Amino acid sequence: MSVGDVSKRILLGRKLRSSQLGETLLPKRIALPVFASDALSSVAYAPDEVFIMLSVAGASAYVWSWKIGLVVALVMLTVVASYRQTVHAYPSGGGDYEVATVNLGRNAGITVASALLVDYVLTVAVSISSASQYAAGAIPSLIGHEATVATVAVILLAALNLRGVRESGGFFAVPTYLFMVAILGMCAFGLLQLLVGNLPLAESSQLEIEPADGWDGPLTQVAMVFLLARAFSSGCAALTGVEAISNGVPAFKRPKSKNAATTLLLLGLIAVSMMMSVIVLANQMRIRYVDPHELDRLRTAAGGALPGGYEQHPVISQIAHGVFRDFSPGFYFVVTVTGIILVLAANTAFNGFPVLGSILAQDGLAPRSLGSRGDRLAYSNGIVFLAVMAIILILIFDAETTKLIQLYIVGVFVSFNLSQLGMIRHWTRHLKDTTDPTARRRMMRSRAINTFGLGMTAVVLVIVLLTKFLAGAWITIIAMIVFFMIMKAISGHYSMVAEELAADEQDKVLPTRVHAIVLVSKLHKPTLRALAFAKATRPNLLEGVYVSIDAEATNKLMEEWDERNLDTPLKVLHSPYREIVRPIVEYAQEIRRSSPRGVVAVYIPEYVVGRWWEQVLHNQTALRLKGRLLFTPGVMVISVPYQLRSSRIAAERESREAKRVQAGDLRSGRVRDSGSIDYDRQIDP
Amino acid sequence: MSVGDVSKRILLGRKLRSSQLGETLLPKRIALPVFASDALSSVAYAPDEVFIMLSVAGASAYVWSWKIGLVVALVMLTVVASYRQTVHAYPSGGGDYEVATVNLGRNAGITVASALLVDYVLTVAVSISSASQYAAGAIPSLIGHEATVATVAVILLAALNLRGVRESGGFFAVPTYLFMVAILGMCAFGLLQLLVGNLPLAESSQLEIEPADGWDGPLTQVAMVFLLARAFSSGCAALTGVEAISNGVPAFKRPKSKNAATTLLLLGLIAVSMMMSVIVLANQMRIRYVDPHELDRLRTAAGGALPGGYEQHPVISQIAHGVFRDFSPGFYFVVTVTGIILVLAANTAFNGFPVLGSILAQDGLAPRSLGSRGDRLAYSNGIVFLAVMAIILILIFDAETTKLIQLYIVGVFVSFNLSQLGMIRHWTRHLKDTTDPTARRRMMRSRAINTFGLGMTAVVLVIVLLTKFLAGAWITIIAMIVFFMIMKAISGHYSMVAEELAADEQDKVLPTRVHAIVLVSKLHKPTLRALAFAKATRPNLLEGVYVSIDAEATNKLMEEWDERNLDTPLKVLHSPYREIVRPIVEYAQEIRRSSPRGVVAVYIPEYVVGRWWEQVLHNQTALRLKGRLLFTPGVMVISVPYQLRSSRIAAERESREAKRVQAGDLRSGRVRDSGSIDYDRQIDP
Repeated sequence: MSVGDVSKRILLGRKLRSSQLGETLLPKRIALPVFASDALSSVAYAPDEVFIMLSVAGASAYVWSWKIGLVVALVMLTVVASYRQTVHAYPSGGGDYEVATVNLGRNAGITVASALLVDYVLTVAVSISSASQYAAGAIPSLIGHEATVATVAVILLAALNLRGVRESGGFFAVPTYLFMVAILGMCAFGLLQLLVGNLPLAESSQLEIEPADGWDGPLTQVAMVFLLARAFSSGCAALTGVEAISNGVPAFKRPKSKNAATTLLLLGLIAVSMMMSVIVLANQMRIRYVDPHELDRLRTAAGGALPGGYEQHPVISQIAHGVFRDFSPGFYFVVTVTGIILVLAANTAFNGFPVLGSILAQDGLAPRSLGSRGDRLAYSNGIVFLAVMAIILILIFDAETTKLIQLYIVGVFVSFNLSQLGMIRHWTRHLKDTTDPTARRRMMRSRAINTFGLGMTAVVLVIVLLTKFLAGAWITIIAMIVFFMIMKAISGHYSMVAEELAADEQDKVLPTRVHAIVLVSKLHKPTLRALAFAKATRPNLLEGVYVSIDAEATNKLMEEWDERNLDTPLKVLHSPYREIVRPIVEYAQEIRRSSPRGVVAVYIPEYVVGRWWEQVLHNQTALRLKGRLLFTPGVMVISVPYQLRSSRIAAERESREAKRVQAGDLRSGRVRDSGSIDYDRQIDP
Repeated sequence: MSVGDVSKRILLGRKLRSSQLGETLLPKRIALPVFASDALSSVAYAPDEVFIMLSVAGASAYVWSWKIGLVVALVMLTVVASYRQTVHAYPSGGGDYEVATVNLGRNAGITVASALLVDYVLTVAVSISSASQYAAGAIPSLIGHEATVATVAVILLAALNLRGVRESGGFFAVPTYLFMVAILGMCAFGLLQLLVGNLPLAESSQLEIEPADGWDGPLTQVAMVFLLARAFSSGCAALTGVEAISNGVPAFKRPKSKNAATTLLLLGLIAVSMMMSVIVLANQMRIRYVDPHELDRLRTAAGGALPGGYEQHPVISQIAHGVFRDFSPGFYFVVTVTGIILVLAANTAFNGFPVLGSILAQDGLAPRSLGSRGDRLAYSNGIVFLAVMAIILILIFDAETTKLIQLYIVGVFVSFNLSQLGMIRHWTRHLKDTTDPTARRRMMRSRAINTFGLGMTAVVLVIVLLTKFLAGAWITIIAMIVFFMIMKAISGHYSMVAEELAADEQDKVLPTRVHAIVLVSKLHKPTLRALAFAKATRPNLLEGVYVSIDAEATNKLMEEWDERNLDTPLKVLHSPYREIVRPIVEYAQEIRRSSPRGVVAVYIPEYVVGRWWEQVLHNQTALRLKGRLLFTPGVMVISVPYQLRSSRIAAERESREAKRVQAGDLRSGRVRDSGSIDYDRQIDP
């Protein structure tokens, strides 16, 4: 096959590969679970938070819970409607970040990116903390060790993702559908019992809640509004993860946008049904639920203190316990799949993080190497960073979901708002250029939806800021500012470098001559190969260079050199202090000085070895030499590799690495098909 | 200056430099303290160990102490006499390792090297542990925290050596001479008091020692011999460090060997006088000294138990306390300089370790990069390794000198023995070729001395093994075996590689053609420079190669390329999965396959930046690409550096690094004179 053929084949792309790419796209029934775990899992903690917030005014405030639920559902459906516009307008998968950047400018984009980064960390911390509470509810011996359980779980998740889990539709589909079945089934069963009149009361139904300090007695109107606002903003935790689909449009089957929009609607409806059912059942079963730190506010019906060691179980656990009172496998099933879906939600953060990193890298906001697939090191650093941040939060807040929630929702609503604002601009801009009345009408409608969405999410953001700033949201805002500044700094650095590197006419001037020197340590195959390669480039002047630190070895080498008739002079540099690097660097600098418009080509024979300890034994001097030579203008460094037998081991390891899946591949439509040609088989035998 | 001039200057070496090299050589008065601290410092613990060992049979056994001291002194002087032969015969500074390798073969040499490595670790552990005991004796609040004090001291020493302490004669001379003055002065003062009859008794003189279990009652002859043998072998700790001078002959002023031999004799005489004076005074002052673990064997004169909290101070402390009873500054002076000399002794290990590493590297027993000066990383690893091993020993043995001593002496005597045996072979070999009767007589005499030395040290080694094997020497022996095997493995690996790399005639064949590809990411200065350099090498075929992951950017680049009229075709490789490295590697492999006798030259423009975080932001893809390309035969990788403004920072840092002193420079005669030309000033402005 000629080079021409080869390059054409590469230029056009392999047919096989493109056709198989299509096969990895997700049908709706798989896309739903892939993108839904984060959003749906919040039903495991959002209703609990509503009850906790209301409980400060005593159990009587619970009457508001389903009304709050309805408002949250309204916001949820509004946001879903808004994002349906986004997936149509921006099918490339850039999501909120792209919408904000394109329509509101770079700083808005960076703000969204900061919010997303913070959100990924909190998704992990909140989901895993909640999961550890479910685990403690089912396995009593874990009680009191929730933070440890959560930390271990985060470490395990990170390890799995570092190792490279193959994501497949089934990996998400089975637990997500099981979770839907579990929650909706449990609620249906419970509502059926309610209808026939034998719905049992919850384990906590006999308790009374004493209002918190300052909340006893009749509430003023302001206090009431504040109470409801706080409960509502906690309930909005249910909205986290809704935006995921807008980042994953490219992974959908065609018509991508339409399928994504439909999936989004489905997701919204399922989430709303779950949340409402849980709230209604919890009310009917008279669940009593307070901040786990204020368990002493729970009293027995007689007004006495609780017996020591009372354990408050999450709302879903209590419902399951009651509904399946005669069928404990039902209870364990619900609790188990809830725990699993929470872990899966945390895993989506591990998957989304590298994808976001890659997008930010392409825009010069993160190290550029994150932008291309397969930088294992950068990718691993991202996973470790995410895990460490999440663990820090878990340990600081002792894995208490209620406290972590205070940090969570700000970031989400910051991006909602900027995204909606961007969409309004988007439609306004497009309306200017559009004359077709049908299209205009559709755009007007979309803009109206986004405007309504903005109004709604703006109100929520204000409520969240007012009610949660001091309770923890300030931490999130500081973290966002830090991320923002780091990204600005990186971006500034890249621009500065780009400016410094901008080409002018002068740069086309060719060097007048090439003076090649081949480093000689011994007269063996690698040296001879380097000499041959150097000769093949026909430099103006070619010489071998040897650093002498031992007279005997020097004489031996010079004899060998003469014997071999190499047609190349050998220059010996004496090094009285046994230095290798310094004499060579000095020599290269002297050559350069004597011919400032020429170029010095330094040929370094390198051993390619396979095992890590062989790396320690070889090439260290070459590495240091190269590091030093790069500082000298007009010097280029040529590595002439010599592959030792053991290099085969490393070549195979590299090939395994290259074939390994990376988290996030599935949701960005980038899964490598197993049928694609394995380029490592193409290495010369 | 033409290249010819330059290379001649480098070839001949700078006059300035060679003449200044001479100035750094050590006169005897400086060489003595530089090399003596290790050997002399053992007087701080060796007598204590003799008393401890004898104490198991009760204080009555102390009558043997000065006889044991005399035997140790005899061994010491014999060893000194033997090493005086070595410094004459092997003036290159290879010491025992060289003697064993040259005369007994590689395995004997590796055995000596293993013993030396173990000894360096133990020198640090023993000296610092002993120093921390002196510190606790002077500062009561440190009592009970000796291990912590010792650990902190090792960490500080390691940090100082990592930082690079400038060793100077004065650095060693002042404390070493002060130590000699302190100990010999104290002893002279004490002996004077003895003569005039007012030598006080020691603080412990009123105590009785109860014999250890099994040692009460009259001793059998065998038990008696064993007791004395054990005490003797502990006393031999005084001999550690005597061999140091034989490794440092090149650092002496001319006539090197003669000066070294004289210094060695001086060292031996001073060490013997110190030890004997201390033992005699301790006996006269009726010091009672037992294993610090068996303090309960000490009784009051009435036979009662000791008051709680009795602190047993080291022998020198007790003598100083008594002799200077009316002059406490004298006591503090003695204790302080003793502590300092012990730290200095530990520091010699940090200095000697890199020197030994360098020698082993030259012989292919350690990573080759250790062989040339200035591999900061390898050097630092050595320091850290030494410190970590010493700290482990200190923590395991709770900084108790008595226990660590059990591990110490084996290694020393293994090298003594192999060295003596080597010297005998050396003389025998030379006697065969020598006819001059005077020379023959001198050699015969030398051989007789070494033979006597071997006899003596062999007996000591057997005694040490018999009495100390179970007490801890087995650990040393296992460590030596491990080091031995590692060095054999490294050496085996290098031989295998050398064999694989041995050149044959075929290797001279030139590649038929050079196909050069220049990687293009953008059309900026680095790319244009790489293109210009590539053109200057006049390859048979030159093209730019661009990996396209984004249609828009690709079109923009292609337009720019055409506009600039670069006379070079641009090949675009499409990468559907956003991979950068893989398409380029594949392309290089395809070119190579289409022309198997040609060579592919891949030009990579590299940014040279100055700050560590800039490294994170640049060159990561280039690095990975290079790593992958090296596995493909027939590919050479050319880094064309472009120096960004910030690279100046790194260039300056590198220059500071290069100028930094490394421990061990002084004792190997390698101190860089400050007048030598600074090559970093030669970087083009």
